[in-house]
Amino acid sequence: MLKVLIIHGPNLNLLGRRETDIYGTTDLRTINGKILKKAKSLKINVEFYQSNHEGDIVDMIGQADKKFDAVVINPAAYTHTSVAIRDAIGTLDIPVIEVHLTNIYAREEFRQKSLISPVAKGVISGFGVDSYLMGLEAVVSMLKKG
Amino acid sequence: MLKVLIIHGPNLNLLGRRETDIYGTTDLRTINGKILKKAKSLKINVEFYQSNHEGDIVDMIGQADKKFDAVVINPAAYTHTSVAIRDAIGTLDIPVIEVHLTNIYAREEFRQKSLISPVAKGVISGFGVDSYLMGLEAVVSMLKKG
Amino acid sequence: MLKVLIIHGPNLNLLGRRETDIYGTTDLRTINGKILKKAKSLKINVEFYQSNHEGDIVDMIGQADKKFDAVVINPAAYTHTSVAIRDAIGTLDIPVIEVHLTNIYAREEFRQKSLISPVAKGVISGFGVDSYLMGLEAVVSMLKKG
Amino acid sequence: MLKVLIIHGPNLNLLGRRETDIYGTTDLRTINGKILKKAKSLKINVEFYQSNHEGDIVDMIGQADKKFDAVVINPAAYTHTSVAIRDAIGTLDIPVIEVHLTNIYAREEFRQKSLISPVAKGVISGFGVDSYLMGLEAVVSMLKKG
Amino acid sequence: MLKVLIIHGPNLNLLGRRETDIYGTTDLRTINGKILKKAKSLKINVEFYQSNHEGDIVDMIGQADKKFDAVVINPAAYTHTSVAIRDAIGTLDIPVIEVHLTNIYAREEFRQKSLISPVAKGVISGFGVDSYLMGLEAVVSMLKKG
Amino acid sequence: MLKVLIIHGPNLNLLGRRETDIYGTTDLRTINGKILKKAKSLKINVEFYQSNHEGDIVDMIGQADKKFDAVVINPAAYTHTSVAIRDAIGTLDIPVIEVHLTNIYAREEFRQKSLISPVAKGVISGFGVDSYLMGLEAVVSMLKKG
Amino acid sequence: MLKVLIIHGPNLNLLGRRETDIYGTTDLRTINGKILKKAKSLKINVEFYQSNHEGDIVDMIGQADKKFDAVVINPAAYTHTSVAIRDAIGTLDIPVIEVHLTNIYAREEFRQKSLISPVAKGVISGFGVDSYLMGLEAVVSMLKKG
Amino acid sequence: MLKVLIIHGPNLNLLGRRETDIYGTTDLRTINGKILKKAKSLKINVEFYQSNHEGDIVDMIGQADKKFDAVVINPAAYTHTSVAIRDAIGTLDIPVIEVHLTNIYAREEFRQKSLISPVAKGVISGFGVDSYLMGLEAVVSMLKKG
Amino acid sequence: MLKVLIIHGPNLNLLGRRETDIYGTTDLRTINGKILKKAKSLKINVEFYQSNHEGDIVDMIGQADKKFDAVVINPAAYTHTSVAIRDAIGTLDIPVIEVHLTNIYAREEFRQKSLISPVAKGVISGFGVDSYLMGLEAVVSMLKKG
Amino acid sequence: MLKVLIIHGPNLNLLGRRETDIYGTTDLRTINGKILKKAKSLKINVEFYQSNHEGDIVDMIGQADKKFDAVVINPAAYTHTSVAIRDAIGTLDIPVIEVHLTNIYAREEFRQKSLISPVAKGVISGFGVDSYLMGLEAVVSMLKKG
Amino acid sequence: MLKVLIIHGPNLNLLGRRETDIYGTTDLRTINGKILKKAKSLKINVEFYQSNHEGDIVDMIGQADKKFDAVVINPAAYTHTSVAIRDAIGTLDIPVIEVHLTNIYAREEFRQKSLISPVAKGVISGFGVDSYLMGLEAVVSMLKKG
Amino acid sequence: MLKVLIIHGPNLNLLGRRETDIYGTTDLRTINGKILKKAKSLKINVEFYQSNHEGDIVDMIGQADKKFDAVVINPAAYTHTSVAIRDAIGTLDIPVIEVHLTNIYAREEFRQKSLISPVAKGVISGFGVDSYLMGLEAVVSMLKKG
Repeated sequence: MLKVLIIHGPNLNLLGRRETDIYGTTDLRTINGKILKKAKSLKINVEFYQSNHEGDIVDMIGQADKKFDAVVINPAAYTHTSVAIRDAIGTLDIPVIEVHLTNIYAREEFRQKSLISPVAKGVISGFGVDSYLMGLEAVVSMLKKG
Repeated sequence: MLKVLIIHGPNLNLLGRRETDIYGTTDLRTINGKILKKAKSLKINVEFYQSNHEGDIVDMIGQADKKFDAVVINPAAYTHTSVAIRDAIGTLDIPVIEVHLTNIYAREEFRQKSLISPVAKGVISGFGVDSYLMGLEAVVSMLKKG
Repeated sequence: MLKVLIIHGPNLNLLGRRETDIYGTTDLRTINGKILKKAKSLKINVEFYQSNHEGDIVDMIGQADKKFDAVVINPAAYTHTSVAIRDAIGTLDIPVIEVHLTNIYAREEFRQKSLISPVAKGVISGFGVDSYLMGLEAVVSMLKKG
Repeated sequence: MLKVLIIHGPNLNLLGRRETDIYGTTDLRTINGKILKKAKSLKINVEFYQSNHEGDIVDMIGQADKKFDAVVINPAAYTHTSVAIRDAIGTLDIPVIEVHLTNIYAREEFRQKSLISPVAKGVISGFGVDSYLMGLEAVVSMLKKG
Repeated sequence: MLKVLIIHGPNLNLLGRRETDIYGTTDLRTINGKILKKAKSLKINVEFYQSNHEGDIVDMIGQADKKFDAVVINPAAYTHTSVAIRDAIGTLDIPVIEVHLTNIYAREEFRQKSLISPVAKGVISGFGVDSYLMGLEAVVSMLKKG
Repeated sequence: MLKVLIIHGPNLNLLGRRETDIYGTTDLRTINGKILKKAKSLKINVEFYQSNHEGDIVDMIGQADKKFDAVVINPAAYTHTSVAIRDAIGTLDIPVIEVHLTNIYAREEFRQKSLISPVAKGVISGFGVDSYLMGLEAVVSMLKKG
Repeated sequence: MLKVLIIHGPNLNLLGRRETDIYGTTDLRTINGKILKKAKSLKINVEFYQSNHEGDIVDMIGQADKKFDAVVINPAAYTHTSVAIRDAIGTLDIPVIEVHLTNIYAREEFRQKSLISPVAKGVISGFGVDSYLMGLEAVVSMLKKG
Repeated sequence: MLKVLIIHGPNLNLLGRRETDIYGTTDLRTINGKILKKAKSLKINVEFYQSNHEGDIVDMIGQADKKFDAVVINPAAYTHTSVAIRDAIGTLDIPVIEVHLTNIYAREEFRQKSLISPVAKGVISGFGVDSYLMGLEAVVSMLKKG
Repeated sequence: MLKVLIIHGPNLNLLGRRETDIYGTTDLRTINGKILKKAKSLKINVEFYQSNHEGDIVDMIGQADKKFDAVVINPAAYTHTSVAIRDAIGTLDIPVIEVHLTNIYAREEFRQKSLISPVAKGVISGFGVDSYLMGLEAVVSMLKKG
Repeated sequence: MLKVLIIHGPNLNLLGRRETDIYGTTDLRTINGKILKKAKSLKINVEFYQSNHEGDIVDMIGQADKKFDAVVINPAAYTHTSVAIRDAIGTLDIPVIEVHLTNIYAREEFRQKSLISPVAKGVISGFGVDSYLMGLEAVVSMLKKG
Repeated sequence: MLKVLIIHGPNLNLLGRRETDIYGTTDLRTINGKILKKAKSLKINVEFYQSNHEGDIVDMIGQADKKFDAVVINPAAYTHTSVAIRDAIGTLDIPVIEVHLTNIYAREEFRQKSLISPVAKGVISGFGVDSYLMGLEAVVSMLKKG
Repeated sequence: MLKVLIIHGPNLNLLGRRETDIYGTTDLRTINGKILKKAKSLKINVEFYQSNHEGDIVDMIGQADKKFDAVVINPAAYTHTSVAIRDAIGTLDIPVIEVHLTNIYAREEFRQKSLISPVAKGVISGFGVDSYLMGLEAVVSMLKKG
């Protein structure tokens, strides 16, 4: 059974409680619930990881290909500033999908450039929770084609 | 029954025959076949449109909200140069999803910037044919939520 | 009797129906009506041309000085991207006036730069339908001074 | 009866005597005469103000909406350097029209960017004295629609 | 008894009457009243100077260290364009504090850069009238430390 | 009684021991002592937090509005690089004041741009320890006006 | 017998009639005559295509390798704006030579950068009609070497 | 007898009293004395004008060619910000020499670019008082050659 | 006996296992072994520290001059993004040497700029494990000269 | 009989021996042989000059119009850095053709900009040895037209 | 008796014969004659050096302070490209004056920036042969003040 | 026995005599002595070459792989301006090490970018004479590994 690591970047722990005009009212727990449901329907395992620490995310990714077949990551603020996460992803052989709740290309100038995208297999941006679900489907499709 | 317009931008008529190292060996007909199949499974109608002419695509989009509930567009080369297509999309009330076969953020500098993204609801980039299929699913999910 | 070509660029066929907060509720037909009325009062002939196709506009301009004494053009989206239209205007000896419904210098950064202005005789921006009417008056005044 | 303030920016007092290849041979007095004539035909009052001092122009604009219904300004050199005039205009509720004798977009790079345009209602550039006259007409048309 | 010069830059004479959504409804007289009250509580003298003229402000600063122990300046629009004021401040040995009513770093791009800050002792931005009061306190604290 | 969180960013634990020509000889403990004293005089509570870890500061801010009425933060090096801290502040409804010991606008080019300022209520830079004390006063004044 | 497609970009249909100080007095028909003569001397076939439409040129190039052994293209204004033509050329296996009548590197800044050159085999610029003739010779030499 | 106008820009009235490490200890009166002495030896008349007001300097230059044969100007801070002074000089037929006490090209980045130089006949920078004296000599030499 | 701190930045814990075409097949343990051997031959002590956490590295450096005579650091990804590490180094009086396994100036644009280099004593880039060994020798030579 | 100077810039003496994947295996002697053969067929004289010294090439060009009717130059590395060679060419009345073995516009960013092209009559890039031969033909054609 | 080295940069050997519209008709020999005459009147010795070779000029400057009291240099094209000449000047303790025949700030963009100016004592630009003569006078005045 | 070419770039012949605050008091002879001593201890041959001429250095490098096993080069000023030296190095198969006496990344902006580094095997910057010695050791280590 395929195993996928879901990484939620900084401040995503606060989802649903604040800035709901931008990010919606769904909290992270509910999002994880939806992901879990989708995972079941796709017959895969998922594991969740949220951290506000760049180093923690680097640690996690660095060990990911021992335990997972793919990573779906929403790097949040680190999308725009972290070469370390980019490099961690660069060391992996398993596919990494970058997802964003909002359409980052329609926001402030500095949010329109991702340091992560050049090392991701693909990018999904702007579909709210669906971005994660589409990421999961993409992973399964990708791994099946192998 | 929902009706979605699928727009294929310039040079996509040549898919599968050339530059197969970048774009794969699947031709546009096969891609349309897969989209059709997905559309059936989602119980929606799709209509295809391919053109190498910026003006044609602008014409098509300009009339789209009379006949369609959503647009999935791969603007190809016009992604990076067409304010006219951007403006045409800007006039629509129905959702427009931007898709790309390749991960444009991992390619030449000039391909990493999309003039279309700021007016798209969401962007999907790098999943080959799946980018279109995910776009269709996103559209259905989006329209269901209303 | 003087003859002036009025060119409406891409998406202007949609005027009045959408994005009315930016462009107002007057449609192109009504605008043309007002232009016609002004033309009559100025005792000149006008001919209208609208196209979403850069190439069509280039074709039209390329033939303009055989049939017209001046051109009033709202290049819309092509204002910012078309060297071809600029070059077509550059080949003309008759005066070309650039007009815009909105004040383009008060909008997004990319709309503040016109590729057309350096080859236009003058530029009128931000007066709604009046931009065209002022353009007509300017043309008449210009041609009278010869 | 509508009352419009006409502001002539720095060095416009020298018009007609020098650099006549760029600005023509008409002097400021003659220009004002033409404006006056147009004002009469439009049945409005105009008042003229010329200064080479940024601060004077700021003073004048700051008091303008107590006495005038609109401002037509040719900011000349201050077009490109004065945030103070921009801010003064920004405080007004009455419409301000920016005019230029020459087509500034066809001149040196630094003259192609106006700090004033984003706070003007509209911009008219390149029609010689007619730029002012068109500005007056625009003001009347604007205020009538009010 | 310490003596501090308070300089209000261009358009601040209009405070409270216009653009109240940005600058609030307090007028300059009221602000000066509050500054005076604070000055009393700090046992210092203050003198006020407002001008829309860059040259006037340069004149004033150039003579300031003969009569004052410190300057608190809100350069307003000249913040972003005046090397002359910067140079005038550069000639002073007494401390100069730069204050802004609004948070200039949260406004338009061109307002985020101050030509004055590199020669100011410190900068206070975004606290409304309190910016001046804090500036006064800072001056007193600074001068006491010597 | 109001409760304010004081955050000291990276390397501020080393204050007073090194680079005393830039940052002075006061150590963090003494600074906190002065802040405490000011807090008492203002009749508010303060809590201190220092960390060299971006993620820790994000964690702390993310929880701040449950326990505090305002935040005074000296983001130090993260001022210029942390979108994560910016986003964390962006989620808060309570006011956040950005303070700096030195005048960052008079230092190296890269220190003159703050990623934090656009989401802060106000910015105080260059007054040494007083920057914090002024920040506290501003917070009290701000909350009283509420 | 080798077959070469000659593409003339936008506005080249107007050659010889206008802007003769830049482009000379030879019209397109005469140019084609000279090309034909050269083709005969080289014992190759040529076919001419002129269009002002980016999409037409993309269409034409997209089908070129079925019928031609090489392409000589003067992309004119599209040199500087068309990613679509660049991509069309990128799909070809046959060699494409870029030619310009004038020396584009000695003209306006925006004409000095070609989007087409990176995918052309070679570039010839500044020799008037000879640019085409040299392009033909280059093609023959290139194809003979295999 | 030739008559030359010497213009001293903003803050030059403070010379010799402050920032003596950069500008030396000679005050403006002494400088004028030296210029006068040199003028005598060259058998020309000079008239001095110092102002901190951009508008004053524009006024002065605007009238200069009625009364003077040449202008020697040290635009000081306005060197880098005044298009108005540039334009005023542009209207003159008499030669204008730009002088600077310090070598502006060896100072801060923003002081290395002069808006005035492109309209000056020549530029002399870095020779202290001698810059003015050399300017005078240049003027005499220039006018003698006619 | 001299004591040198060796800091390995983010992702260096993964060395030798992945991206071996760029970084070689030697793992961190082996590298440390070689460093240890070199240290012995130089008669100095070394202590190793690896972390993926920017804050940890800042903590470590902040305490370094109490326990060490020098630091040799490979900041890896933080080379390009960490002002915090730069500032931590800036507080040290002991020398810090920056080393890189690969020649960062021959890699992607963003890797060619180091935020750390301006505060390092020297930089060694591109010699694989030897970069560290050379760094150790440099430290010893440097400290001997005192 | 026409006489043409052929200048080979720096490192071209090494042709054919190294970097043969970029520059091919033909050495300079062979190239000169081919040029000689072409010259004979065109009935012109050629003289060869190769130097790695910018100054030598400047010297040579400076004297060229006394002895030659045209220059064909491959400036190699100096293409991108030599204003001196550009200026030397600028002093000539005889035509200068710039040639490159490779297509410089398809190489590294810094090779895509030529300082020489704006003063050359025409540019030929990317045809290997043929670039020189085409340059010779162009020269003959050019001189015949006079 | 003071001894001054006069250095003429690349292409100045061609003066007077070509591009006389820019550089005038005076040849280098005549210029040197005028310099010699001025030197006599100033009672100093001068020595001339002209070279098109950057290295030669570096050599010459490197030895200059053994034999000369000052250098007057017209670096011509190397003004804009030579860090080597800048560094050579940087090693000198004797004053170096940079002169230009034309006003370089009124010419092409790339000629407006001098790499030499930041290490020169002063710069004189735009006075034709007089630039050298003024440079000589400046040197004498400078050395007399010591 | 390995043979290494040591190249000293422009102005290094002046070392030790001037700018000793930046480059130290050691002259080139002493540096060569130290290199020779190190070479002996490493059992390799070295040959020295110093030139202020870019072309000479290009010549030397162009012939280097016939006689040497490696090159250690301090390109000095040419580091930042010479594409010719870069290209010469690019033709070599033997390793080239770039060394600098000072830490160029801690100096002026223009010295922080090296045109040479992308083609060097490795870069050593900031260790004074030791930079050369470390370069020699690196070369030996590199060649031993093959």
